[in-house]
Formats: sequence, C-alpha cells, structure tokens
Amino acid sequence: MVTPDFSKGLVPAIIVDEQTKDVLMLAYMNEESYQQTLATNETWFYSRSRQELWHKGATSGHIQTVKRIQLDCDRDTLLIAVDQKGVACHTGARSCFVQKIREVEGHE
Amino acid sequence: MVTPDFSKGLVPAIIVDEQTKDVLMLAYMNEESYQQTLATNETWFYSRSRQELWHKGATSGHIQTVKRIQLDCDRDTLLIAVDQKGVACHTGARSCFVQKIREVEGHE
Repeated sequence: MVTPDFSKGLVPAIIVDEQTKDVLMLAYMNEESYQQTLATNETWFYSRSRQELWHKGATSGHIQTVKRIQLDCDRDTLLIAVDQKGVACHTGARSCFVQKIREVEGHE
Repeated sequence: MVTPDFSKGLVPAIIVDEQTKDVLMLAYMNEESYQQTLATNETWFYSRSRQELWHKGATSGHIQTVKRIQLDCDRDTLLIAVDQKGVACHTGARSCFVQKIREVEGHE
C-alpha cells in the first residue's frame, strides 16, 4: 500500500467535505496521527503549537469521519474527504477559509 | 487587506480548479512568490527542493490563472481557485492527487 513520506517532517492534510467538495481546513499529520486516522477512520492531527496529537472533535464533538484518503505524486501531501459533523473551524464557521483576499469577476 | 502570516516560514497554498472544485495540487509560497502571484494574477511558488521562485507553467505552459484567493482563520494557509491550462501535475495527470489509499464505500 502506498504510504506518505514522513522523512521530511510533518505532512499537510487537506480536508474537504465529501459532499460539497469544499475545502474545510488544512492540518498536519505525523506518522502516529496518520496511523490513528487509519485505525479509527476519524481524523487525527499533530498540533504544531501544542506539540501533541489531536483527535479532531474530541472536545468539540465536531468529528470528521473519513470517506476517502488520497496521496499526491511526491507522497508528501494528503487529501482527505470527510463527513464533517458540525463545523470544521474553531471560529464556528463551516470552513476555515472565510477570509477573501481576491475575487476575479467574470468567467471566460 | 488581510495578508498571510509568513513569520513562521513558508505558507502552503492549496490549488483548486475553479470550475470542478477538484484539488489540483499543494505548493508553498514565500512572501515574494505571494506578491508575484498578486501582481501577475498567475501562481508563483517557492520550490523547497530547488530553493527558488517558481512560476507555475513557465516551462510547461501549464499556467494557472488566479480566480480567487482565500486565507484561513490563522492566516497560515492559502486556498487559491484557478483556471488551469493543461494539467497541474508534472506526471501529466490533471491533479497531483491520483494515488488512493482508502475509499469508504456507502453513504449514510
């Protein structure tokens, strides 16, 4: 089975809503959190600020159930489609990406 | 205007197809590549392996025209919707995320 390359350090995991395809958040995994994610089928991350494993939703109840895991071509980024219970962002927003910097109007 | 926080180092940029919402790739930006992206409205990254600025598509022709730029709640991840000319991945695939690790069948 293909596995992420943790030799360069933490691996970013892009979390998308399986139904809407919206990007909900990005967090980091070390090998232990990745293995916990596989074992439980819920997302676990490694918190860079707290330097500890973090079971997403353990305190908030906002669990992410894993529906699909994909790996990129050089095996250092994960793309995980989830069923998000509640909201993904600690601010209470559905997605962490709420701040818009630029919007280009008009489609070709 | 809200700006990314480069104080902790490089900022990952999630690149999605504006039309399909598919995640195409993830690459990293430093402040210079971010400013170049804003100035040209095409994606520029910082290559960690080559340690240099990288104008996506400059050699391959697979330019990414920026349609929308969003920032996450703690300002250290960018989400950029693009119009992708050609393919995003150096392997020739449309998206870099072609390797599937897990697929959970069935929907609730």
